[in-house]
Amino acid sequence: MASGGRLNPESDNFENRPTFYIGQHDSNRFEPLTEEQYNQVLNSGFRFVTAPITNEHFFKRVVDLHREYLQEREQWAREHGISDSQSTNPSLPGPVVPTLTDKDTSLGPCHYIGSLVCYSSPWIDLCSADPHISSISRQVLNLEAAYANFCGARTIVVPGPRQDESGRGIAQYARAIKEVMQVASRTNIVVHMPMYREPGLEENLETLSDIFGPEKGPEANAKKEIDLFSAWDSWNAIRSVCNYSMRLLLALRIPRRVPEKSLQERWFAEPLHFLTIGQAIFQLNRAGHPSLSRHHQDMINRYMRLRNVPWLVLCDVGPSPEELAALSDKLTSEFPTLAEASQALGDSRRPQSLALNAHVGYMRYLERQQPPFSAMESPALTSFQDWLQPPLQPLADNLESATYEVFEGDPVKYDQYEKAITEAMTEWRELKKPTSSATPENPSNPELIVTVAGAGRGPLVTRVLRAAERTGTPIQLWAVEKNQDAYVYLLRKNQTEWANQVTVVKTDMRGWEGPRLRGREDIIAKVDILVTELLGSFGDNELSPECLDGIQHHIARPHGISIPHSYTAHLSPISTPRLFADISSRVVGDPNAFETPWVVRLFAIDYVSQNVPGHPRFQQAWEFVHPVEINRADDFAAKHGKAVRYATAGVGSMSGSSGTNEHNARHCHLTFVCPTRGVIHGLAGFFESVLYSSQTGAGKEPVEISILPNQIDRKSKDMISWFPIFFPLKKPLYFPQDTELEVSMWRQTDDTRVWYEWLVEVYAWVEPNTRIKVGASELHSSRKVACLM
Amino acid sequence: MASGGRLNPESDNFENRPTFYIGQHDSNRFEPLTEEQYNQVLNSGFRFVTAPITNEHFFKRVVDLHREYLQEREQWAREHGISDSQSTNPSLPGPVVPTLTDKDTSLGPCHYIGSLVCYSSPWIDLCSADPHISSISRQVLNLEAAYANFCGARTIVVPGPRQDESGRGIAQYARAIKEVMQVASRTNIVVHMPMYREPGLEENLETLSDIFGPEKGPEANAKKEIDLFSAWDSWNAIRSVCNYSMRLLLALRIPRRVPEKSLQERWFAEPLHFLTIGQAIFQLNRAGHPSLSRHHQDMINRYMRLRNVPWLVLCDVGPSPEELAALSDKLTSEFPTLAEASQALGDSRRPQSLALNAHVGYMRYLERQQPPFSAMESPALTSFQDWLQPPLQPLADNLESATYEVFEGDPVKYDQYEKAITEAMTEWRELKKPTSSATPENPSNPELIVTVAGAGRGPLVTRVLRAAERTGTPIQLWAVEKNQDAYVYLLRKNQTEWANQVTVVKTDMRGWEGPRLRGREDIIAKVDILVTELLGSFGDNELSPECLDGIQHHIARPHGISIPHSYTAHLSPISTPRLFADISSRVVGDPNAFETPWVVRLFAIDYVSQNVPGHPRFQQAWEFVHPVEINRADDFAAKHGKAVRYATAGVGSMSGSSGTNEHNARHCHLTFVCPTRGVIHGLAGFFESVLYSSQTGAGKEPVEISILPNQIDRKSKDMISWFPIFFPLKKPLYFPQDTELEVSMWRQTDDTRVWYEWLVEVYAWVEPNTRIKVGASELHSSRKVACLM
Repeated sequence: MASGGRLNPESDNFENRPTFYIGQHDSNRFEPLTEEQYNQVLNSGFRFVTAPITNEHFFKRVVDLHREYLQEREQWAREHGISDSQSTNPSLPGPVVPTLTDKDTSLGPCHYIGSLVCYSSPWIDLCSADPHISSISRQVLNLEAAYANFCGARTIVVPGPRQDESGRGIAQYARAIKEVMQVASRTNIVVHMPMYREPGLEENLETLSDIFGPEKGPEANAKKEIDLFSAWDSWNAIRSVCNYSMRLLLALRIPRRVPEKSLQERWFAEPLHFLTIGQAIFQLNRAGHPSLSRHHQDMINRYMRLRNVPWLVLCDVGPSPEELAALSDKLTSEFPTLAEASQALGDSRRPQSLALNAHVGYMRYLERQQPPFSAMESPALTSFQDWLQPPLQPLADNLESATYEVFEGDPVKYDQYEKAITEAMTEWRELKKPTSSATPENPSNPELIVTVAGAGRGPLVTRVLRAAERTGTPIQLWAVEKNQDAYVYLLRKNQTEWANQVTVVKTDMRGWEGPRLRGREDIIAKVDILVTELLGSFGDNELSPECLDGIQHHIARPHGISIPHSYTAHLSPISTPRLFADISSRVVGDPNAFETPWVVRLFAIDYVSQNVPGHPRFQQAWEFVHPVEINRADDFAAKHGKAVRYATAGVGSMSGSSGTNEHNARHCHLTFVCPTRGVIHGLAGFFESVLYSSQTGAGKEPVEISILPNQIDRKSKDMISWFPIFFPLKKPLYFPQDTELEVSMWRQTDDTRVWYEWLVEVYAWVEPNTRIKVGASELHSSRKVACLM
Repeated sequence: MASGGRLNPESDNFENRPTFYIGQHDSNRFEPLTEEQYNQVLNSGFRFVTAPITNEHFFKRVVDLHREYLQEREQWAREHGISDSQSTNPSLPGPVVPTLTDKDTSLGPCHYIGSLVCYSSPWIDLCSADPHISSISRQVLNLEAAYANFCGARTIVVPGPRQDESGRGIAQYARAIKEVMQVASRTNIVVHMPMYREPGLEENLETLSDIFGPEKGPEANAKKEIDLFSAWDSWNAIRSVCNYSMRLLLALRIPRRVPEKSLQERWFAEPLHFLTIGQAIFQLNRAGHPSLSRHHQDMINRYMRLRNVPWLVLCDVGPSPEELAALSDKLTSEFPTLAEASQALGDSRRPQSLALNAHVGYMRYLERQQPPFSAMESPALTSFQDWLQPPLQPLADNLESATYEVFEGDPVKYDQYEKAITEAMTEWRELKKPTSSATPENPSNPELIVTVAGAGRGPLVTRVLRAAERTGTPIQLWAVEKNQDAYVYLLRKNQTEWANQVTVVKTDMRGWEGPRLRGREDIIAKVDILVTELLGSFGDNELSPECLDGIQHHIARPHGISIPHSYTAHLSPISTPRLFADISSRVVGDPNAFETPWVVRLFAIDYVSQNVPGHPRFQQAWEFVHPVEINRADDFAAKHGKAVRYATAGVGSMSGSSGTNEHNARHCHLTFVCPTRGVIHGLAGFFESVLYSSQTGAGKEPVEISILPNQIDRKSKDMISWFPIFFPLKKPLYFPQDTELEVSMWRQTDDTRVWYEWLVEVYAWVEPNTRIKVGASELHSSRKVACLM
C-alpha cells in the first residue's frame, strides 16, 4: 500500500507526447546576437539561442598577457643564469587576468537575457598541467560567469574537461567548477560533456594549452581503445566535488555512433538539461533532407521521457553568421534604451522572416513521431516519478478514507485477489477438505469460514462474496478492522451492499477472539480462509508477518490457508543522483533521511548490475510463508509444552527483548555483478507475492502479484498500488569495472518494532582468481524510524 | 610556532620507562576464579585475570537446543515430503536461546568485578554461513554481555571473527558487535584479533559451526599463501561498522613469527588495549627459563611506548586450574555476603602464597630492559601525543607572554637563526656588498640595516646583536612589532639588555614606513637583512608569505636578503584511527572540525605510503621564496608602470577579490605509493626552511630547519617548536593493495583570507599497465576557518 494519486488520462493537462524545445548554437559566433538577429533565429523555428560571454578582443588580451609573462620569465632566468625549464618559478608570480572592459564583451543586461544560454569561452583549459594556464583559465571562467550572473543570465554552459589520459586534471577542473558556482551564485552551471570520447569528434577548438604547448605530433591523435565510461567518470568526479548541487547540470553531446544501452541508461539517470546535436550527427536522406538514424531517434525518444524533458541544442546548422549579418545593422546600440528595445520588439512582430530551418523541421517531425504516452505515463503518475514518500505506519496510524480510495482504485490487485480466492474455494471443494463450521448439531456443515482481516473499507469483502457466489460456495464471512472510522463504513456497507452477510468486528486482528459460529455464538470456530492485504513495497515492511502471527492461531489446522500464501523481498543496487541530492537536501530537517526506507516511483535511475548466471539484476532477499508452523511463544507453548524454549527466551535475540518476534528476523547476503564502473546511491526494493498456489500442484500456475520490473507485466500488468522502496546510502559508493557489489541486509526486531539494516561492500576482480576489496558503505539502520508493532 | 608545553624531565612524574601491567588468561578455565583463587593468582605476580561469563552447563544447553531444532526440521521435512537441504525454512522458525539461569554462570557482582576481564564464550561463531548458528551465536553474545554489564564488568573480550576466506561473514560479525555495544552499554568491548592469520596458530577451540558443520577434510588445513593484512582488514571493517566507537578496543594476539615492520606499524596506530601472549610464543633459554626472541622484545618495547600503554595478557602459563583447585574449597558461596567477602579479603592478606610465576618474572625482567625515556619522551611532551590543537591566528590575534615564552624555550631553532644571521653578515662583508645606510654626508657608511619584523619579546633581536658582535659587523637594528603589549616589553628590554641599540617600532609590519636612518631621521633607507619568524607547521600556514609581501618593498635591491630565504610544505597520507574518532566526536560542537587543519604531535599513526623511486613517503607540495621579484599591485605598478596587469586585476582570481594575493596561491598534485592495503584518515603536513643559503655557493651547506620526520635529526635535531599539521578527511578512505594515492591540494586566497583545499583519489594497479580508480574523498576546504590576512 504505497502509491497514492489517481489516474485521469482524459484530464485537460494530458498531452499525448513530450514537447521538443529546440535551441541553436553556433561555434563560430563570437558576439551575442543583436535583438533583431535573435528574433530572426526564433523565426526560423528555434526557441532559444546561445550567446558567448566574451569576444575575440578579450581572447587576444589574455593570450598577450601570458605571452608577456613567459618573456619576462625567460629574461629573469637569463639574468639569473638558470634554465627556464620549470613551469613555475616561486620567485616570479604568474599573471593575473585584468578585469573585463566594455571592449571585451558585447553581452549586457537586456529583456531577453533570461532566454539566452550563455557560453563561456571554449578556449580555456581548466585541467592544464601548466599551472599558469590552468590558473588563467580559472580566472577567465570566473570573470565571465560573474559578468553573466550580473547581467541576469540563468544558465552558463562551460566546456567539459579536455581528454585527460591520466585523469589528473579532473580534480582541478572540478574544483574550478565548484568555485565558479560560488562566483555565479544565481545561475545554473551546465557542463558540456560528450556521451563518450568519440575519436575525431572531440571539439577541435584550440585552447590556451594548444597555443602555448608543444606541437602535437601525429601520435597525439593515434587511435586508442575507446573507454566508453571515461566521460561519465569525469562528470561523476566533478559533481561529487560539487556535492551534487542542484544548480549543476549537464549538456550532453550526442555522438555520431550511438553507444551501447548501458551507457545510454547511465546518462539517463543524470541531470540532463541539454542534449546537443552537432551538424555532423545528421545524415541526408534520399530527398536530401537532414535526418537522424533510427538509433539516434530511439535514444532521443528515451531521454524525452524524463520528467524534466531535456532541451535540444542544434549546433552549427544555421542560420549562419553571414545570413544574420545582413540583418544586423538596424539596432544602433548594443545596450538599447527601453524605447529602442520596445521598438525592436514591435519590429519583431513583423519580422523579415527566414524560412523554417530544415533541421528544426526534421526535429519537429521526430517530435510528432514519438510514441504517445501510455496509461502508466499519465501526468498523475509521472508526477510521482522520483518523488520521495515517507513510509506508512499502518499499524500505529489509522488511514483516512481518501487513502483507502486510492488503494481501491487499482483493479489489477483486487482481480488477482478474487482469482486467488476463487481458486482456493474451488480447490477446497474439489479436495473435499473438511470445514471448521461443523458443530455437534450439524457435524458436516459445509460452510467455509472466511475472514478478511484488516478489511479497511471492504474491497476484499466484496471480492470474497463475489468469488463465493461465482463458485457456489456457502460461506460464513467475518470482516475484522481496527480502524473505528472504517468500521462504521463497513457496517453501513454490510447493510447497503452486502445484504448483512458479513459479521463485522472492530478489533486489532492480533486481539481478535476468533469467529463465533453463526447461530451458535457460544462456539468459537477456526478460520478456513484468511484473506489480508498487509503488504508493503518490500513485502514485509508494513509488518504483515507480525500481524498474521497475531491472528494465525485462528486458522484451522491442517487445512486452513492464508491469502497471501507467501511473499518475497527483492533488491537491486541503483545509481540515482537525483534522489541522493534530494535526500541530502532533507538532512538538515530530518537527520534520519539517509536511514529511512523511502517509497518512491523510481524513474531516472540506472540499474548498475547486469544479469549474469547465478547473479541476476534483481535478487531475492528473503521469504515469508503463512501460516508458519510454530510462531509465537504462547502458541508454541500451548501446543508443544516446551515453554522454556520460547516463553522465557532471553535478551539474546535483541537488546532488552524476550525474542518472541525473533523468528521474523531475516538476513541476506547478495552478490551483484557490475562489468562497467559506476556509482551507487542505494538499493531499490521490490516484492512479489504468491496469493494462492494450488495444493494439488497439477501444473497450475500460482496466482501472483509482483512489482518487480522484470515480472510485473507477466504477473500483474498495470498494477499501480505499489511503488518500489528505496534504501539510500549516506555516501555515494563508487566502484570500478569488473566489480561485485555485496549487499548485506537484515530485518531486525526487538519485539516492539521492526527495522532494516543494510551495508554494501565493493570487491573488484583484478586477475582471474583475485578479488580485492575496494570499499564499503557504512552500516545503515532504520531503527530510529522503525515500524511500530 | 605551534607546539606549546614545557619540558621538565626532572619533575616528580617523570618515570624512566613504561610500566608493564600483566594479567593471566587460562583457556581451560570454565568458571571464574573464586576470590581466594583470584588472590592466589595476584600473589603469583599477575595484576589481573580473565573470567568466563558462562559455563559448560550453558554451552550444553545451547548445543541441545540447536540439535532439537534440527531434529524437528528434519521431521517436518519428512512429513511434508520435501528434502531438508536448505539451511532455512521460512515455515519453521529457528531456535531462540533461553534466558540465563544461575546454573549457566558462576559470575556475579563482587567487589573485584572491576578488575576482572570478562571473556565471552569462544565457541560461538558470529560469522557462520548457517543463519541459525550465526543467530544463536549472536544471542549468546548478547546474553553474556548483558549479564556481565549487569554485574559491573568494565571490559568484555569477544573472540575475533574466524578465518573467512570470502570475507562474507565479516559484515554479520561487525553488525553483531555493534549490537552488543548497545546491549552492554557501559562496558568496553575488546575484540581479540591475531596480528595476522598465522597457519596453525589460530585458536583451535571448537565452535558451533564445527559441532554442527560437515567434517573438515585435510584440505581445510592445507597451507595457503599468508595474507598478512587480512586480519587487520577484518578489524577495520568491524570498527568502521561500529563508527570508530571509543568503547571498541583491541586485544592483539602476538604471533609466533614476528611479521614485517609495516604490519607492526599498522597495529601500532590502532586502539591496543591488550597484547595477548600465548604459552607457545615463549622459548626456553639455556637455563630452561621462558624467554622471548629479540624480534618479540623489540615489538613489545615499541608498543609499550604508546601513550595508553597496552596491558599484557599471558595465556595458559599457569597457575593451572589444578593448582588453583586445591585452594578453592574455602569460600562457601559464589555470591558471598558482604561479611564473607570482607573475611575473604582478610584471608587474602595472609595468602597461601604461590611462587612468582616464571613467565611473569621474565616479563618483569623485560620491563627493566626497556630503553629509558629520551628527552623527547618526557611526560610534558608525550602528553601532547595525538592531542589536537586548533591552529593559531597570529595576524588576527595577539599572543600572550606565556606563548612567547614557550617558543623562546627552544634553543635549537634560535641557534639555527643565529647561525644563518652570522653567515649572512660574514658573507655580506666578504662579497663587499654595499649597504643601504649610505647618506649624502656619509656615502660609504658600512652599517648594515637589519630589521627583525614580528619581534615578539625579542629572542631574534638578541641573536642579531650576538651575531653582529661575533662577526664584528656594525649594524643599525630595528625591531617591528604589532602587539602593543609585547612592544612595552621590547622597550624595556632595549633599555635593560640591549643598551638602547635597537629602534623599536610599534606597527603591523605591512604598514611600516621603513627604517629612518639613525642621525638622519629624515631619510628612509632600505633593509639589508630582514629577519622574521612567521612560519607555521606547514610553512606558509600562518601567512608568512603575505606578511613578507607587505614589508619586502623595504628590502634593498638587489642585495637585500630575507631570513628565512625560502620554505617548502610537505605532505604524507596517514592512518590515524584515534584522531579520526577524536575529530568525529567534536563535530557536534564544531561543524568545521573535519575541515580544520589541526596542529598535533602525531604519534600513534601509520604512514601508509612507501618510499619508492620518484614517489617518496614525504613529498613537497610547494615552495615560497623571499623576496619575490614582483608581488603586490602597488609595488609592481610603481616599478614597472604596468598598472593594468596587476592593479586592476579582475574577479578572476577568486570570487569577489581583485587578485592582489593571487601570486601566493599554490596547487600541487602528488602521487603516493601503497603496496599494502589500508585506510587513510588524512594528510600529515610538515615544513622545511632554508634560513640562509650561501650566495657564493662554494660548497657551503645551507642553514636549515626542518620538522620532516626523516630530516629533522639531520637539520635541526631536538627542535620542538613545531608539531606537524593534520588535514583530516571526513570519511576514512580505504584502499586495496598496489594503490596510488593521488593528493590534490590548493592554497587559496581571496585577498583577505588564506585557506587550504584538499582531495585524495585512490587508483589501484590491476595489471602491469592498467590503473583503475577505486575511490575518492570529498573536496575538503578550510575556508570557514581560514587564516585572516
